Amino acid sequence: MADAKKPRTNIVKATNVVYQAGHVTRNKRGQVIGGKGGFRGCTIWFTGLSGAGKTTISFAVEDYLCSRGIPSYGLDGDNIRTGLNKNLGFSPDDREENIRRISEVAKLFADAGIVTLSSFISPFAKDRLGAKELHEKAGLQFFECFVDTPLQTCEERDVKGLYKKARAGIIKGFTGVDSTYEPPSNPDLVLKAGDWSVSECVEHVVNMLEQNDVIPKSITQQVIELFVPADKLAASRSDAEALPAIAINKLDMQWVQVLSEGWATPLKGFMREREYLQTLHFNTSLDNGIISQSVPIVLPVSNQDKEALTGSAAIALIYNGKRVAVLRDPEFFPHRKEERCCRQFGTCNQGHPYIKMVYESGDWLVGGDLEVFDRITWNDGLDQYRKTPNELRKTFKQMDADAVFAFQLRNPVHNGHALLMRDTRAKLIERGYSHPVLLLHPLGGWTKADDVPLHIRIKQHHAVLEEGVLDPNSTVLAIFPSPMMYAGPTEVQWHAKARVSAGANFYIVGRDPAGMPHPDTKEDLYDPTHGRQVLTMAPGLTQLEIVPFKVAAYNKKEQKMTFFDPSRKEDFEFISGTKMRGLAREGKDPPNGFMAPTAWKVLSEYYQSTKTT
Amino acid sequence: MADAKKPRTNIVKATNVVYQAGHVTRNKRGQVIGGKGGFRGCTIWFTGLSGAGKTTISFAVEDYLCSRGIPSYGLDGDNIRTGLNKNLGFSPDDREENIRRISEVAKLFADAGIVTLSSFISPFAKDRLGAKELHEKAGLQFFECFVDTPLQTCEERDVKGLYKKARAGIIKGFTGVDSTYEPPSNPDLVLKAGDWSVSECVEHVVNMLEQNDVIPKSITQQVIELFVPADKLAASRSDAEALPAIAINKLDMQWVQVLSEGWATPLKGFMREREYLQTLHFNTSLDNGIISQSVPIVLPVSNQDKEALTGSAAIALIYNGKRVAVLRDPEFFPHRKEERCCRQFGTCNQGHPYIKMVYESGDWLVGGDLEVFDRITWNDGLDQYRKTPNELRKTFKQMDADAVFAFQLRNPVHNGHALLMRDTRAKLIERGYSHPVLLLHPLGGWTKADDVPLHIRIKQHHAVLEEGVLDPNSTVLAIFPSPMMYAGPTEVQWHAKARVSAGANFYIVGRDPAGMPHPDTKEDLYDPTHGRQVLTMAPGLTQLEIVPFKVAAYNKKEQKMTFFDPSRKEDFEFISGTKMRGLAREGKDPPNGFMAPTAWKVLSEYYQSTKTT
Repeated sequence: MADAKKPRTNIVKATNVVYQAGHVTRNKRGQVIGGKGGFRGCTIWFTGLSGAGKTTISFAVEDYLCSRGIPSYGLDGDNIRTGLNKNLGFSPDDREENIRRISEVAKLFADAGIVTLSSFISPFAKDRLGAKELHEKAGLQFFECFVDTPLQTCEERDVKGLYKKARAGIIKGFTGVDSTYEPPSNPDLVLKAGDWSVSECVEHVVNMLEQNDVIPKSITQQVIELFVPADKLAASRSDAEALPAIAINKLDMQWVQVLSEGWATPLKGFMREREYLQTLHFNTSLDNGIISQSVPIVLPVSNQDKEALTGSAAIALIYNGKRVAVLRDPEFFPHRKEERCCRQFGTCNQGHPYIKMVYESGDWLVGGDLEVFDRITWNDGLDQYRKTPNELRKTFKQMDADAVFAFQLRNPVHNGHALLMRDTRAKLIERGYSHPVLLLHPLGGWTKADDVPLHIRIKQHHAVLEEGVLDPNSTVLAIFPSPMMYAGPTEVQWHAKARVSAGANFYIVGRDPAGMPHPDTKEDLYDPTHGRQVLTMAPGLTQLEIVPFKVAAYNKKEQKMTFFDPSRKEDFEFISGTKMRGLAREGKDPPNGFMAPTAWKVLSEYYQSTKTT
Repeated sequence: MADAKKPRTNIVKATNVVYQAGHVTRNKRGQVIGGKGGFRGCTIWFTGLSGAGKTTISFAVEDYLCSRGIPSYGLDGDNIRTGLNKNLGFSPDDREENIRRISEVAKLFADAGIVTLSSFISPFAKDRLGAKELHEKAGLQFFECFVDTPLQTCEERDVKGLYKKARAGIIKGFTGVDSTYEPPSNPDLVLKAGDWSVSECVEHVVNMLEQNDVIPKSITQQVIELFVPADKLAASRSDAEALPAIAINKLDMQWVQVLSEGWATPLKGFMREREYLQTLHFNTSLDNGIISQSVPIVLPVSNQDKEALTGSAAIALIYNGKRVAVLRDPEFFPHRKEERCCRQFGTCNQGHPYIKMVYESGDWLVGGDLEVFDRITWNDGLDQYRKTPNELRKTFKQMDADAVFAFQLRNPVHNGHALLMRDTRAKLIERGYSHPVLLLHPLGGWTKADDVPLHIRIKQHHAVLEEGVLDPNSTVLAIFPSPMMYAGPTEVQWHAKARVSAGANFYIVGRDPAGMPHPDTKEDLYDPTHGRQVLTMAPGLTQLEIVPFKVAAYNKKEQKMTFFDPSRKEDFEFISGTKMRGLAREGKDPPNGFMAPTAWKVLSEYYQSTKTT
């Protein structure tokens, strides 16, 4: 053990090192160790009438922060009046001493790096000013937060019956009845807790903390979009005309869409080498806390492009002859294809269709900060389904969703899938959620040639919803714009992480997710159980609860898809993708109850059309 | 944002989720979320005379814990008497109220999940009992820690001159002079701070916390050895005779040595699939906090062995016809060689010598808890250099080391290496360390055929030390028993992590560490800069400070190795390994000052012997 007296450069406050939070401060190892000044301890001083909702809100904020790894602690009547201040009464002097002691304790907590939540009526401006000054003198942030619920509302609530007693004269000197409440003249935050829900209040508090660099953006999981703001668009476009340019292909453009809409938050553009190495070796992004980022999002360029553009401060990206984006402060680094594919896919076999594309791409990668001019659209009649993470979050909010469970798919939905989604919803309701919403989220980027095309899948999903196999009122059907990589456990982390960006907090994971047959052996390229195993262990995905896939099979007795019961094996039939495709191609119907009939018809027509062409 | 009123399974106390500490409690995602009961907040109550060392020790404990990500906070006169208790004097009542308030505040901190360190004389048993009871009633751990420094020592120190004033009657009621100190009758810990160093005191406190499951073993980085205790050895050996057995080869046996001596702490044996997946996908071990573990340590077995042994509760391992260890609760899982090599090496090219061995090994892996009978020795005259991590730690302690910097090598030491090591030592001394010790730590396991054999390297290193190119008095020469994998950035993390087990806190990393030429292209298999880059970002290596390798070259003008100065390029010559081997083989001498002459002679004789055979 090193002697405690010696200087050691790695020593920083615990709350900074481990949370790796904040935007700016790094230790010598390049790790982020905290927010501004490497420190986030602060006090939020909730003030307001009895019954205004101070403690309820502070509990909810504590829960929110603690669940995201930010140490937070609430001081309130329960733990102060019965302990530290049990020798104080309600005389003016004692009330002042009460607040003084609380201020001192809050200061100690803030000094320890804790987000401290103090919930006391604290009716007098002078006392609150004292608390504020105490913190400021110690260089600690202090936020006065006015829980501004009208007296009438508080009195109507009267949870503890105190107003009644005060009105009856049983309690003397009750704030708002026979004692003054001095509202803050210039609070840092006002919470209209009479009108707003608890979650809305929490959101305001959290936003304030974020804006003051107390907590990092990665905690609130704000989605970082990379679009040029409207007021700068004209200038930016005209600047771009003068820049040297690279032509990008459709696959690159799909990644531009992924990045620009914020699915890969907090990536600010195509990966630089540092980010690329973090992804390849740790399946994470490490510069804003530990965040899941398992797949490299990179832009390959040719030797010529690299030679021509090295030294440029910015590069325009051209797609289909049009300048669509600018890459600022570009960084070129070698595209070590064998190593990249091995680490990303666990194979470098070029019989794998995505690996083949990697090998055919440029020998250099260029990372940089991306600025995208327009929302990316494909004019295929499906653009209305291409909702950004922020649009999806807004939709969920409008639907009053209190849980969002995501289902990634690149195949048609049969009644087994539907059963699982319905079952997940039922379980969430059982657990106390009142409005769980399903994000039915087919992948819409590049897929291999023998997968069912996107427009057919969307039509099929629609039919499933129209037949009511899935509840259209609590389901959002949208397209996930990412290309498919068939990278198994590595890719399933990406699929999950992107849905966190869209606001999902539950994720259904299947057997052999993102898998395919090995190009040579034709056996599973990935162990079918590894996707789920790796996903549940993945660092930086703690916000997401993984819902494991239960096996559903066709129950011949009940003539529908049910969860497989191994004790009644003989009742079940497993209908493979191959069998399904065979039936569809031949124009035959699957067993009754396997798939919504109109949805089957979509598929059947598609497969028959592929046969005749 | 989920509504705060709803039940959410991922919500646990911040201090638990993020630190992922402790041994037992996991959340639904299988992540470890805390110690016993998922909670580690506690109070350590330091009591003792003025000048006993309470605050000094508590500061050192706070530093130790905080630097390891355990939230800790000290309460002492400085932050209490000037704040919360500034309205208290030194009357008996006020002294009692002083301690009462501190107890209440400590309880709040403990409740917030903080290891709270209270440092007050607290002379009266009654007051201390009050503090203890307050915590116990709240279900919080409380440790009374007696800082037992003799009055005479305290009075001799008299840092603040208080004893002098008390003896002179200027201060009244001073504990130990004219007021009683009631020593604890049954303290949880006694620190002989008059005799012990601060580090020794910290060590005792930390051990107490560890034994009480307040902090996980991964924090103290105790090395977990897997040897059967002496008193159980006979029984264990005889049990093993009756077990089914697997024959292991020399490479496996080297890994048994690595595991048994604790280099891969906290691994308890050959990896199970869960651990294997954590390593392959995240280069970490995730079940005891985030700990670096970049290379799989696995035992391959044949199909036949797997068939024969599936279902066995334990398996004996046979090396050279002798039962050397038992693998308990074995778990068989597929040895997916292509995927394993790709993720571990970034290639699956079988021209790579370690990959070739992987492909030639069994199709299954077997993980399990390892129990090893004897210290592993090789009887090659070098066993005295094979020191275990615990032996090395002990050695460093005996040398009074306050910094240990490790240098991994598998090649001869030339004066450029030596320059770097001397430079590192000088820098550490500049930074305030008084006894930095160099761990000169050649790798001793399997290496490829054209590397210099271990016994020649050891002889060469000895010559370097004997000539005084490195200071023998502050250098420990020992063998690192691991096999070499030539896995570049992935392996360099292993090399660093293993040295943390041995007590190193600084690690020198070179250019292209653990690299080799690509079997086909003959170019660098790994980008020479990636090793250092990945190492500085690696999660779970925060305890180690990475010292980057400066480029040294032969300075023709000064006739010695110096750090390369690009502005005087013409003065320098880079002497490649190939050139060096060429000179040695031909019996020629290198330029003056390139290597200690007797060390060169060792090499030269070796290379000439390889020429003639």
